[in-house]
Amino acid sequence: MKVREMPVVGMAGGGQLARMTQQAAIALGVSLRVLAGAPDESAARAVSDVRVGNDRALDDLLAFAQGCDVVTFDHEHVPGPHIQKLEATGVPCRPGSAALAHAQDKLVMRERLSELGVPCPAYAPVPSPEPRAFLEAFGREHGWPLVLKSTRGGYDGKGVWIVGDPEEARVADRLQAEGVDLMVEQHVAFGRELAALVARSPYGQGAAYPIVETVQEGGICTEVISPAPGLAKDLAAEAQSLALRVADELGVVGLLAVELFETGDGLLVNELAMRPHNSGHWTIEGARTSQFEQHLRAVLDLPLGSTEPTAPYTVMANVLGGDDPDVYPRYIHVMAHDPGVKVHMYGKESRPGRKIGHVTALGADLAEVRERARHAADYLRWGPAMKDHR
Amino acid sequence: MKVREMPVVGMAGGGQLARMTQQAAIALGVSLRVLAGAPDESAARAVSDVRVGNDRALDDLLAFAQGCDVVTFDHEHVPGPHIQKLEATGVPCRPGSAALAHAQDKLVMRERLSELGVPCPAYAPVPSPEPRAFLEAFGREHGWPLVLKSTRGGYDGKGVWIVGDPEEARVADRLQAEGVDLMVEQHVAFGRELAALVARSPYGQGAAYPIVETVQEGGICTEVISPAPGLAKDLAAEAQSLALRVADELGVVGLLAVELFETGDGLLVNELAMRPHNSGHWTIEGARTSQFEQHLRAVLDLPLGSTEPTAPYTVMANVLGGDDPDVYPRYIHVMAHDPGVKVHMYGKESRPGRKIGHVTALGADLAEVRERARHAADYLRWGPAMKDHR
Repeated sequence: MKVREMPVVGMAGGGQLARMTQQAAIALGVSLRVLAGAPDESAARAVSDVRVGNDRALDDLLAFAQGCDVVTFDHEHVPGPHIQKLEATGVPCRPGSAALAHAQDKLVMRERLSELGVPCPAYAPVPSPEPRAFLEAFGREHGWPLVLKSTRGGYDGKGVWIVGDPEEARVADRLQAEGVDLMVEQHVAFGRELAALVARSPYGQGAAYPIVETVQEGGICTEVISPAPGLAKDLAAEAQSLALRVADELGVVGLLAVELFETGDGLLVNELAMRPHNSGHWTIEGARTSQFEQHLRAVLDLPLGSTEPTAPYTVMANVLGGDDPDVYPRYIHVMAHDPGVKVHMYGKESRPGRKIGHVTALGADLAEVRERARHAADYLRWGPAMKDHR
Repeated sequence: MKVREMPVVGMAGGGQLARMTQQAAIALGVSLRVLAGAPDESAARAVSDVRVGNDRALDDLLAFAQGCDVVTFDHEHVPGPHIQKLEATGVPCRPGSAALAHAQDKLVMRERLSELGVPCPAYAPVPSPEPRAFLEAFGREHGWPLVLKSTRGGYDGKGVWIVGDPEEARVADRLQAEGVDLMVEQHVAFGRELAALVARSPYGQGAAYPIVETVQEGGICTEVISPAPGLAKDLAAEAQSLALRVADELGVVGLLAVELFETGDGLLVNELAMRPHNSGHWTIEGARTSQFEQHLRAVLDLPLGSTEPTAPYTVMANVLGGDDPDVYPRYIHVMAHDPGVKVHMYGKESRPGRKIGHVTALGADLAEVRERARHAADYLRWGPAMKDHR
């Protein structure tokens, strides 16, 4: 009798997303193989099958993919042409290069979404050289400030510049001189940011999580509230439908996170990500199926899991490194202070502003749940200047 | 500034308990090092820091313990004298050899619990040689059948023999000839089996999970229901207190599972285990803190986590290997049939009767939740003879 082995999922990238995917892989009984840049990266410390290499180098990717049933990604930075070459060797890449292009290049994404009639902020590619006359005209039409973006490679506020007036638009000259491809977008006077997280399998099954609110500080997400408080039911349903439709039209396999602006006129798409996403970390405790399990199920073409929430409210707060890298004493305090808060540390050295973990709290009283999550995250970040307040 | 590194927990044994402990270690950001017998053991497939060796050999244990902040155990079979030697080198073992003796030797356990006034079935050591006259006298006093037990090394129904009459007591001669140390116990005409799971930290903090019902078939636990349906509140509180008291009196650090008989006259202790336990697998989804996280927190002397249940009822069913080792097609079916059931596979080859995984379902309707868990577990076990019924 032929016994089918449990499959091997290769994930390029050794960050915390791969690390947390390992928790789900252990339960599912599938093997996660990680391509990490160094043996002490976040996921490399947690996975038995680690290959050390450069996930932007074709040879390393080809060697890594041998023996994987499917290859997926911890980030967007694997070059599209390399993924195409992997695909040409017969290794299924999920998401595939064609879909992933929309998460790798913001201009490609905007053009495609606009074709599909998906609401986006006004945008345009920035001509090179001599970008400033164009930016001034764009500013006259759509108002200042403008949002200047690198079309590729940005994350966590990197690759995004808020340009307040024509004078500040000089930054575009400097960036283009450095070889950065730029686009410009209207600055959206939004009420708040939301995120829609969906999964899609090769079979075409889709699953949508509740719409969350994401709270940003300095371009970095600090807090995620599920479900987004006070969000109108029809707007929540619209956001889920939009994300499922984008996943389908773009042929996404795996997770798709759609970052949204909620404005007075409705929803606008901000960014796309095709992988487990910071806005979905709450699902580990707050949904019947975590985003990491869901991503594995989707890329393996397994039936998707229930996205049902496990509590009325779940709040996730990111733990950023503070001035004091000695986190352990604060970690003990947080556990003693609140036995119900769940602490997730990523095995990363603490540096100021670096995401080194997250915390999750759940319950029925939103104000209390937020306070619990914030207290834990703030405390873990706390530096020596604040020690007197303990 | 001195930065305290996240601690390293060494776990002797590479089974599914160590495997699932890794899921909790990843979240906590602590490093789990496993001493496995072979690189393809259940936990060795899931952990980055695997040492292959014999966890019953002192040299392997000593080498393994170097660099661990604490050593704990996936099973009871590490010889007590070896643990004492580890302790003598200054490595904290949790639980320690003195406590663990009560989970390693059933006669030591019975004698100690009786001293403490903890209710147990009538028991006696079986003299050697010539055990039969003694057994006949024990049977006359306490009734037939008797329960004959190997004092050491038993698990999952192994090491236990139900002896129906004086004629069947001949088995004791054979066992003693093989060098097995025997004890005898009264056969308890119990209503059902319960389990009390508690944790205790070196600091002395204790935490008790809800009391569960464990359903056994052929000496193997097949199903665990949390909380035990219809259990009187005072009896539940008594079982929790009893387990906390035993943990304290015996100086247990880590988890303690107390298997109980519920009889018409109250509770009797059946067995003790000092590690994550099959009766606690439901806590992964069904409690705010999983037993695996709790065990790590306890052995690291971290504050313990909340044991609050996440749903009115959680049912865990073990997946045993069936006649057909090709589990994967059935695994797909189970996920398609019930998107809310959580499947845990242990990375073990399927063999008839072997525990190869478990499934968990949660909800408010106990009958429905049991049916969901059972269906999934039965289906995953299904052999070719039942394929017509798909």
